Amino acid sequence: MIRKPTLVLNEDRCRKNITAMAAKAKRSGLQLRPHFKTHQSLEIGRWFKEEGIEKITVSSLEMARYFSEEWDDITVAFPVNVLEYATINELADKINLNLLVESLDSLTHLNRLLTGDINLYIKINIGNNRTGIDPKDHSLITRIVEEIVSSKHLIFAGFLGHAGQTYSCRSKIEIVETHAKAIGIMTSLRDVFKKDFPNLKISYGDTPSSSVCDDFAGIDELRPGNFVFYDLMQEQIGACNSEQIAVALACPVVAIHSARNEIIVYGGGIHLSKDSMHDREGRIFGRLIETNDQAWGEIIPKCFVKTLSQEHGIISVSDSLLKRIKIGDLIYILPVHSCMTANLMKEYLTTTGRKIEMFNPLSA
Amino acid sequence: MIRKPTLVLNEDRCRKNITAMAAKAKRSGLQLRPHFKTHQSLEIGRWFKEEGIEKITVSSLEMARYFSEEWDDITVAFPVNVLEYATINELADKINLNLLVESLDSLTHLNRLLTGDINLYIKINIGNNRTGIDPKDHSLITRIVEEIVSSKHLIFAGFLGHAGQTYSCRSKIEIVETHAKAIGIMTSLRDVFKKDFPNLKISYGDTPSSSVCDDFAGIDELRPGNFVFYDLMQEQIGACNSEQIAVALACPVVAIHSARNEIIVYGGGIHLSKDSMHDREGRIFGRLIETNDQAWGEIIPKCFVKTLSQEHGIISVSDSLLKRIKIGDLIYILPVHSCMTANLMKEYLTTTGRKIEMFNPLSA
Repeated sequence: MIRKPTLVLNEDRCRKNITAMAAKAKRSGLQLRPHFKTHQSLEIGRWFKEEGIEKITVSSLEMARYFSEEWDDITVAFPVNVLEYATINELADKINLNLLVESLDSLTHLNRLLTGDINLYIKINIGNNRTGIDPKDHSLITRIVEEIVSSKHLIFAGFLGHAGQTYSCRSKIEIVETHAKAIGIMTSLRDVFKKDFPNLKISYGDTPSSSVCDDFAGIDELRPGNFVFYDLMQEQIGACNSEQIAVALACPVVAIHSARNEIIVYGGGIHLSKDSMHDREGRIFGRLIETNDQAWGEIIPKCFVKTLSQEHGIISVSDSLLKRIKIGDLIYILPVHSCMTANLMKEYLTTTGRKIEMFNPLSA
Repeated sequence: MIRKPTLVLNEDRCRKNITAMAAKAKRSGLQLRPHFKTHQSLEIGRWFKEEGIEKITVSSLEMARYFSEEWDDITVAFPVNVLEYATINELADKINLNLLVESLDSLTHLNRLLTGDINLYIKINIGNNRTGIDPKDHSLITRIVEEIVSSKHLIFAGFLGHAGQTYSCRSKIEIVETHAKAIGIMTSLRDVFKKDFPNLKISYGDTPSSSVCDDFAGIDELRPGNFVFYDLMQEQIGACNSEQIAVALACPVVAIHSARNEIIVYGGGIHLSKDSMHDREGRIFGRLIETNDQAWGEIIPKCFVKTLSQEHGIISVSDSLLKRIKIGDLIYILPVHSCMTANLMKEYLTTTGRKIEMFNPLSA
């Protein structure tokens, strides 16, 4: 019995999402190196092993340490934080560790601090303008490659890019066009460096392009993460449909305000996160789905999370929902951004009533 | 030595904030019942005890259980979640527990489920339109009071309101005007019920009005919470100045992009939260402050958190900061909303290097 805000995981949907992405990677001849920052769970990680996945991506060194209990090839897809050199050295002794650099300064620190061998990818900016080197700056890229090659503990692995700009797309055709440009940049770069480094790898892949596109020629590995659960944002982008969304926040109804078609639930910004999106009803923080016993149904029309405070969720509801909802009922909310919701909730309850633990940085 | 995103607490500023609010409540003849949802820490709670505070407010029953180790009079300022009746009964046996109702349906559930005595406040909507009964609906309020009075385990304590609309104010004068209207509603209601209930209490108080206003005639107790740390939002509202902000997120610099005046730090939405505000530089998620050794200085002009992803913070920086910043440096970010940042970080490091623990719902 759920009595407080609880992140419910639909294991069936989640496993289908994993199976579909593993099958697609296989079909396209790609190494799937899924990003585990979304689910952050050793147990869910084992569902990927059942699909033959052997290598993973994470977003922090502490998360890499957590997963190193069961995985021996991990990429930390984040510009290396040189202050954590002790964790890097610890992991370098234990697993095949892949890190990202995008400056000579970081390399200088690594050369001074490393005691074990690590593989380095050079982060390339393929249009997202968040991190990464300008792909046209061959001079800087060459100097970094040379510095890596001449160092004691560093192995040049290849180029890594993240086409995060696909999150601005709002249709499959937009995603396909954005993706084509982004992989064009990566493959051009490979062409420049392949004569000296025939084995360099091209690592790529966000959830929208990995879900929607079919042409990955020139790419070696895919690193999508969010697809394990998907969410309303991915549905809006065009990367999934709502029946693929595998997590929902169950929230007790604590107040009903019929005059303004609103209900108040126990479930706020510290549970769902303050991530929001704009759609036909303005700015929303989640949508309600029908549930009966263990089955999830459709999105309920005209019902959405209107605002969130720390523990309160204010839900705008339709007349028909208002008629049947009662104090003490549970409603199920599909999140706008499942990565953020999962990170806040720190554990799952499956639709079959089983608790699943996840990474907790406090115990790291 | 800080090596990863760390919430640093300036104990000196925090204690000054507590002392000032305690002195103001005393001066105004008000019971201060501070809201502990902001700091969520037994240890910081003890700093309030040093100022003579004996009663507190929290936002969930689980948080009440955590604080019941050291506090014996706690108000849960949230419409009662009847599904958690077991926790309510457990706490009713242990402490003086005050809960909120705003419907007859909740009362019916409580009457059926309670085994111990609790005090009930009726939640009144004093302009925030989030929760609470319309103050003009004397008929409903009277029926709820009668139902409380005739029940076995319920004690009618009074009326509780939250003028959350002060968060839309942008100056002291606006706060004072909004506050005057809100307390007018509360005192009118008291006038109606005081002949039958001469001892009923009026509970009130958000951080903006508690910080800025001086006239609280007719109010019995104040429940501000955020003032313990304050934040950039409170500064924008006009409730504090930046030298009163007592928490900052320390983040390692992992990349520098001089061409676009940006640096990338390890510190993202899972650390700061995605709460943002609009000011002269557009939408921002935090501002940088100067630090040297253990002292915090001024806000650094033209330096702000521009966007956040899960673990990345993208910081727009001035030319002068750009000249002196290096990979591996730490920057200190004042949060937009300290309650959300503290809730995410789940522990503090004081400027003098001491760890302070806080409530963790996973261990509740």
